[in-house]
Amino acid sequence: MGIAYTKIRCGILPRGSLNKISDVPGVTVGHADIRNEQHRTGVTVILPGKDNIFANKRIAASYVHNGFGKTLGTVQVDELGTLETPIALTNTLNVGLVHDALVAHTLERCRADNIPCVSVNPVVGECNDSSLNAIAERVVTAEHVRAAIRTACADFTEGDVGAGAGTLCYGFKGGIGSSSRVIEIGGERFTVGVLVQSNFGRTADFRLNGEPFGEILLKRMEQGDFTPAQVDKGSIITVLATDLPVTSRQLYRILRRAGIGLAQTGSFMSHGSGEVMLGFTTANIQHGDRIFDEGRFIRDDYLNEAFRAAGEATHEAVLSSMLHAAPAVGLDGTVYRSLSEFGPF
Amino acid sequence: MGIAYTKIRCGILPRGSLNKISDVPGVTVGHADIRNEQHRTGVTVILPGKDNIFANKRIAASYVHNGFGKTLGTVQVDELGTLETPIALTNTLNVGLVHDALVAHTLERCRADNIPCVSVNPVVGECNDSSLNAIAERVVTAEHVRAAIRTACADFTEGDVGAGAGTLCYGFKGGIGSSSRVIEIGGERFTVGVLVQSNFGRTADFRLNGEPFGEILLKRMEQGDFTPAQVDKGSIITVLATDLPVTSRQLYRILRRAGIGLAQTGSFMSHGSGEVMLGFTTANIQHGDRIFDEGRFIRDDYLNEAFRAAGEATHEAVLSSMLHAAPAVGLDGTVYRSLSEFGPF
Amino acid sequence: MGIAYTKIRCGILPRGSLNKISDVPGVTVGHADIRNEQHRTGVTVILPGKDNIFANKRIAASYVHNGFGKTLGTVQVDELGTLETPIALTNTLNVGLVHDALVAHTLERCRADNIPCVSVNPVVGECNDSSLNAIAERVVTAEHVRAAIRTACADFTEGDVGAGAGTLCYGFKGGIGSSSRVIEIGGERFTVGVLVQSNFGRTADFRLNGEPFGEILLKRMEQGDFTPAQVDKGSIITVLATDLPVTSRQLYRILRRAGIGLAQTGSFMSHGSGEVMLGFTTANIQHGDRIFDEGRFIRDDYLNEAFRAAGEATHEAVLSSMLHAAPAVGLDGTVYRSLSEFGPF
Amino acid sequence: MGIAYTKIRCGILPRGSLNKISDVPGVTVGHADIRNEQHRTGVTVILPGKDNIFANKRIAASYVHNGFGKTLGTVQVDELGTLETPIALTNTLNVGLVHDALVAHTLERCRADNIPCVSVNPVVGECNDSSLNAIAERVVTAEHVRAAIRTACADFTEGDVGAGAGTLCYGFKGGIGSSSRVIEIGGERFTVGVLVQSNFGRTADFRLNGEPFGEILLKRMEQGDFTPAQVDKGSIITVLATDLPVTSRQLYRILRRAGIGLAQTGSFMSHGSGEVMLGFTTANIQHGDRIFDEGRFIRDDYLNEAFRAAGEATHEAVLSSMLHAAPAVGLDGTVYRSLSEFGPF
Repeated sequence: MGIAYTKIRCGILPRGSLNKISDVPGVTVGHADIRNEQHRTGVTVILPGKDNIFANKRIAASYVHNGFGKTLGTVQVDELGTLETPIALTNTLNVGLVHDALVAHTLERCRADNIPCVSVNPVVGECNDSSLNAIAERVVTAEHVRAAIRTACADFTEGDVGAGAGTLCYGFKGGIGSSSRVIEIGGERFTVGVLVQSNFGRTADFRLNGEPFGEILLKRMEQGDFTPAQVDKGSIITVLATDLPVTSRQLYRILRRAGIGLAQTGSFMSHGSGEVMLGFTTANIQHGDRIFDEGRFIRDDYLNEAFRAAGEATHEAVLSSMLHAAPAVGLDGTVYRSLSEFGPF
Repeated sequence: MGIAYTKIRCGILPRGSLNKISDVPGVTVGHADIRNEQHRTGVTVILPGKDNIFANKRIAASYVHNGFGKTLGTVQVDELGTLETPIALTNTLNVGLVHDALVAHTLERCRADNIPCVSVNPVVGECNDSSLNAIAERVVTAEHVRAAIRTACADFTEGDVGAGAGTLCYGFKGGIGSSSRVIEIGGERFTVGVLVQSNFGRTADFRLNGEPFGEILLKRMEQGDFTPAQVDKGSIITVLATDLPVTSRQLYRILRRAGIGLAQTGSFMSHGSGEVMLGFTTANIQHGDRIFDEGRFIRDDYLNEAFRAAGEATHEAVLSSMLHAAPAVGLDGTVYRSLSEFGPF
Repeated sequence: MGIAYTKIRCGILPRGSLNKISDVPGVTVGHADIRNEQHRTGVTVILPGKDNIFANKRIAASYVHNGFGKTLGTVQVDELGTLETPIALTNTLNVGLVHDALVAHTLERCRADNIPCVSVNPVVGECNDSSLNAIAERVVTAEHVRAAIRTACADFTEGDVGAGAGTLCYGFKGGIGSSSRVIEIGGERFTVGVLVQSNFGRTADFRLNGEPFGEILLKRMEQGDFTPAQVDKGSIITVLATDLPVTSRQLYRILRRAGIGLAQTGSFMSHGSGEVMLGFTTANIQHGDRIFDEGRFIRDDYLNEAFRAAGEATHEAVLSSMLHAAPAVGLDGTVYRSLSEFGPF
Repeated sequence: MGIAYTKIRCGILPRGSLNKISDVPGVTVGHADIRNEQHRTGVTVILPGKDNIFANKRIAASYVHNGFGKTLGTVQVDELGTLETPIALTNTLNVGLVHDALVAHTLERCRADNIPCVSVNPVVGECNDSSLNAIAERVVTAEHVRAAIRTACADFTEGDVGAGAGTLCYGFKGGIGSSSRVIEIGGERFTVGVLVQSNFGRTADFRLNGEPFGEILLKRMEQGDFTPAQVDKGSIITVLATDLPVTSRQLYRILRRAGIGLAQTGSFMSHGSGEVMLGFTTANIQHGDRIFDEGRFIRDDYLNEAFRAAGEATHEAVLSSMLHAAPAVGLDGTVYRSLSEFGPF
């Protein structure tokens, strides 16, 4: 189930069938969240597969466009070019706890699978949801991480769920959004899928279909109908998955194009907007313990469609996060409207 | 003298008086080029000041967004955070020669100024102008570099001059473009100026004022009236100057926002489009040989306007390079039109 | 109290009075650990000062020489060049928990000091102590972090304490070690202090005073007297403090020289030996909220003594960690000897 | 022909048959130099093979440990992970010219081989030989580059030849040195070869076989017999070749271990000592234009022997450069002795 936004166009490439990161075969997403008067926060988990990721490492990369953020686990991803846990997203002040929960999860899973494990590198991204969430109370628990993993599926919900329960985007309610693109290289079809946790942007900067939508809206609105975000702060975490056979270096190159999609929405990548891109491929999985892997890898000369797909899917994922989110009331009483209220799109 | 493009808007910040990189006090730009039936190429030089740069090093940074390019001199800039020569731009196959000429220039200047010099790090960027220039003949000479330095001025020409004589942008004639923004921080005014050597883009991707101008144009044009760029290749070199008192780390952060301006024009930063950003500040010049420098530096929390300015000025500099360029005929007879022919803008 | 090792020489620069990282004025170190039959692990905390670090950020840098490790918090340090919490060290599988505890600590401290805080970036390093510690039981708690902070002092204990309780080094018992160097630049005295959590090295590679001590020892020992480390795995975390007025870029350059000290002990920086360097200066503290900071910074041309000091102090800190550690028995009954048993040095 | 230095030991791995970088099958090295009263300088070229490198790109990497240097061409190597020309070494003020000559060489070669080429990325390293060479006269010419390429062979000369004609090392005559190590992984033999252009080091820091040789020598020598290098400046360029099937990310990891060999000789990697490592593998050559490459790649878990080999071969290559160099007289009359005079080793 999703929202049709037929008038919105983000580029020229065809979407995957779900138009989600889970169009990449094997990828699933789960959420768990807390919503009460004081709290709107949670956890979203992206699983590269339902198998034991620790035992079947994925080629991976991270790209930090603006490192004013607390993403954990990139040091090892950058060195070894592999991912060995699901990727989790949460709020800024619970990243340590979620990291800890992913360690617990991996130990349990490896125990069950009879795989020795005394060291593991979880990857956890975050946004600051303190406008809607009494963040200092740090209400996320390890059980939320477990629940998110347990319920992960391909046709997951977008909007104000999971780690997106309390986030804002351009002064609207933000959240989790996802999109995908299908590309054809050498007669073969590959998918590039993106999921974002959106939490950035100043209303006046927001662009839609190339138009300065935010600016137009602010002129149109009566005082009090809409409380604009006056400052660009927050963050945006972008998770990209693909089945294209790329090295971590090439994946890094693809991740660097995700920011184009953010720029299309009007972002100027402010100081306070931590922008971190995390990616993995489901091709060339490193199973078990081997000395040499045989593999097939694409040449850089043929990466253009993947570059374009990364920008387009990120662009659409941000809009999708906003369109799928319901309005919400902030801790200080501010109403954060849903972009979908200003449609139809 | 410039071209008025009153309908084009790139952001919200005010421009400097010349709307060029030379709005940053002290900065000048010079060109020298070759134009004949087989060659359209040349050299553009950006001078941080008319003083001896080697003796008065500028705090500087480089940022490589896509390193498929031959820019020289970034290793030392990255390590020491300083610039010690003018920055030169030229064609891909003459970067070595231009580097060599900048060494000669520095040795001569230091000899004249009685400053010992046995080591110097020139910075040279490049684009591939092989559609309009028989590039393999490598016709640039050291004399072009000297001439460009000699004639550098504040109110320099834009368009198909200097290192932009033979470049293309989105299938139109590209070239050298420049723009500036004035920002106010803590009650003080600072300038961010940008100069680009534009040589990238696929026509169908070109956006103007948020609209898919390239796509619209291609539908409107009769066959033969316009030969679109079908593939995004080439490169774009962005040089940024400011008088804001920043460290090299902060300058690097500013340079990372230049790409937003490129994205606004429709770029998806293709594999073949080498994107290199070079920047310096005229604040906190390192004069002579001292052990300690006293200085004033801005806090990162107050960099947002500079970030925005970098994106806006880069956006406009690209358009300006296209609008100032006259049409040209390629080596294979293809006519490369000027964007200005499709206005008024 | 320390151990005198008069015959060991690590370079030529004079030591500070404590010969510890705490020779840098204001710097203190605290430990908390767990030692029972199944567990030898803990937490070590390095405090840049007793003030509120979040409110008085230190210029900082990180350098990852081998990123096979789980160090948390480097993304923001790299972007902003500042440290806003104490640095904590612990075991591999408790880094998330310790991160979480540092968040709690910062929130509490800021509440007490009436400083708003909804976002904070703890820095946590780790080594894998699974030979001496049933690591999967993850016995470190937030209380250990609090205790380590509470008990931090200048004349702290070295050896098998805190985060070093369960680590090994070249097949000997490793742990926490520290050393310092005093340098003179422009007639002023500055201090470079280093603290390491040592947990790496293959016995046969160990060098002392330039000699292949490990190799000689292995030849000399009867079977069973000494169980050599046959493989170099584990990690080494190096924390460097100084009062030299450096930018984060310059601090990064200094951190890159710490590895020289590791090489002097015989390390070849194996795949499994995560090598992470974290550093801060107590000069040019960023107090409160200001737009501009006035500061004094050293020129790179005068950094040589600091470079040398970084290598020497790291070299000695590793040896000191080994010499201060008592022997210990591993979970599998292996006896890990103390280097001090093979002296006098 | 070489010099036997039977008492010198650099590690534990076996050497290749030539004990040179050319033990990696296909790799050759050529020199050309100028020696007269005012000049001692030249060019050394490392060829990954005798084929057209532009058409058969090698997987490659660069690692800058200290970027106070003018190495050209690393931007593209870092982005694409490939090498498309021979690697050339020369003096600091001729890097541009040598870059230009490598462009000319590639254009000629491609013309001869009927391969289209309008863009090429040469890689050029450098050291500053201004103590022995009137460097500002910049006497290297394109003909030296051509001659070096033409005469490249496996059993090349070491010492004060080519780009090492005028360099110094620890106050002794330096130059070109080379060494190799043979490693066994999974029952297969691979070679790691290193070539250095040595030009760094303060005499008192020089270590040989773990002993403070420089310090001992300075005490032993009569005033006037030996003019010690009082300051560590200059640079060291390290070129590493292997036939191990590694990605560019893995090669980068290997290159990072070369510095261990430098540390073993006593280097503390001073400010002025630009340290750049360049590497390539002859495995998985990217022939012609393909969309996908099939390949075999080693897992990171099995890289340890390659890491060790990189350090050991670099260590020995530095010593070899010194032992093979004849004494020389500087422009100011200083006699730079050969390390070999102080043997036998």
